[in-house]
Amino acid sequence: MGRSSTARDRLLSSACELMHTRGYAAIGVAEICARADVRKGSFYHFFPSKQALTAEVVNAHWQRQRIGWQTALAAGAESGSDRGVPLAGVKRLERLVGWLVDGQRQAWEETGRVDGCLLGNLAVELSSQELGSQELGSQELGGRGDGGDQEPGIRRRLGAIFEEQAALIESALGEGTRDVARTVVAQIEGAVLMSRLAGDITPLAGLWPAVRRLVAGP
Amino acid sequence: MGRSSTARDRLLSSACELMHTRGYAAIGVAEICARADVRKGSFYHFFPSKQALTAEVVNAHWQRQRIGWQTALAAGAESGSDRGVPLAGVKRLERLVGWLVDGQRQAWEETGRVDGCLLGNLAVELSSQELGSQELGSQELGGRGDGGDQEPGIRRRLGAIFEEQAALIESALGEGTRDVARTVVAQIEGAVLMSRLAGDITPLAGLWPAVRRLVAGP
Repeated sequence: MGRSSTARDRLLSSACELMHTRGYAAIGVAEICARADVRKGSFYHFFPSKQALTAEVVNAHWQRQRIGWQTALAAGAESGSDRGVPLAGVKRLERLVGWLVDGQRQAWEETGRVDGCLLGNLAVELSSQELGSQELGSQELGGRGDGGDQEPGIRRRLGAIFEEQAALIESALGEGTRDVARTVVAQIEGAVLMSRLAGDITPLAGLWPAVRRLVAGP
Repeated sequence: MGRSSTARDRLLSSACELMHTRGYAAIGVAEICARADVRKGSFYHFFPSKQALTAEVVNAHWQRQRIGWQTALAAGAESGSDRGVPLAGVKRLERLVGWLVDGQRQAWEETGRVDGCLLGNLAVELSSQELGSQELGSQELGGRGDGGDQEPGIRRRLGAIFEEQAALIESALGEGTRDVARTVVAQIEGAVLMSRLAGDITPLAGLWPAVRRLVAGP
């Protein structure tokens, strides 16, 4: 019973890992169950669908990530300083970028892969749309039929998370910087995409110089 | 025979449209053939595999796009000026960004969708990697088995195209700006990702202000 009580968590973490590495459409319920060591018949006891599981994966992932964002962007004192002088917004943003790049670097050192941003990867894949020829879709072609714009709720959630990231950056840089903060979020996603494509972290070396220029003001 | 002589082109353009809109893994050979009005049996007469077709789709797409990049970034005179005063690099870059945003806006007005960047979308999807559990993959699960890192050649080509984009930008901004140019390419990809996710072109309004800041220098 000890195992089954953690089955739900194992399904979530297996799905998170599989989707981060290989995407959404390429992963099926059977594979998630196999990786989680959960019988396929039990899956639907925990989640009504792969979409429902994915929505929880996204929320759980951002819940963990948000702590890192908030910590990096907090107005806390420089570590080691007793005097508690608040850090300037741009220094806090530098701390955020450093933390993000370190995360990719650590994963790359451990796995030899750059998986990039789970949220950005899902954003690209789940924003695909159905065309008129979709009647030729899943059933006839033996596909899983769960690609396409069938996850508008997850898309909205991803958009809300990116906006929350921009709001967190704005809170560090000062009110009225939301537009600039959004371009920082876009720069992070673009740089991480390039790094994922290259399969190494070299492209991330340019991220902080770019972000610094974005927030430097006219 | 007139039709069959264009069958190859129709397969290429159908695949390009389907992949731009719905991605790579979600599209199968049968669907591409149906859209192109080509019998499935004929597909392999023209292309040995979906991967081979995709490589040609990427090259054909960039061949067309490159003309737009080169035209926008050319040192040509301001249109309407007889005197042929060369445009400054930053003005040529502004022309490029305007052209890219116009392209997304026109497609959005025609289709109601923002498909984003075919190359960026494929970069995310084709950079997915196999995990140890892949033995549970395509065959047993009835998938198409063509996701995953089975297209290293296409990935390398996509990386080379993004580098060519950076080189084109460098040629406008001046030698030694390659690193900055790469951050411009990343910003374009990130902004287009956000626009695709939102399903409208509003996020692209911030693209030129961001690029201008990136190239403004310290």
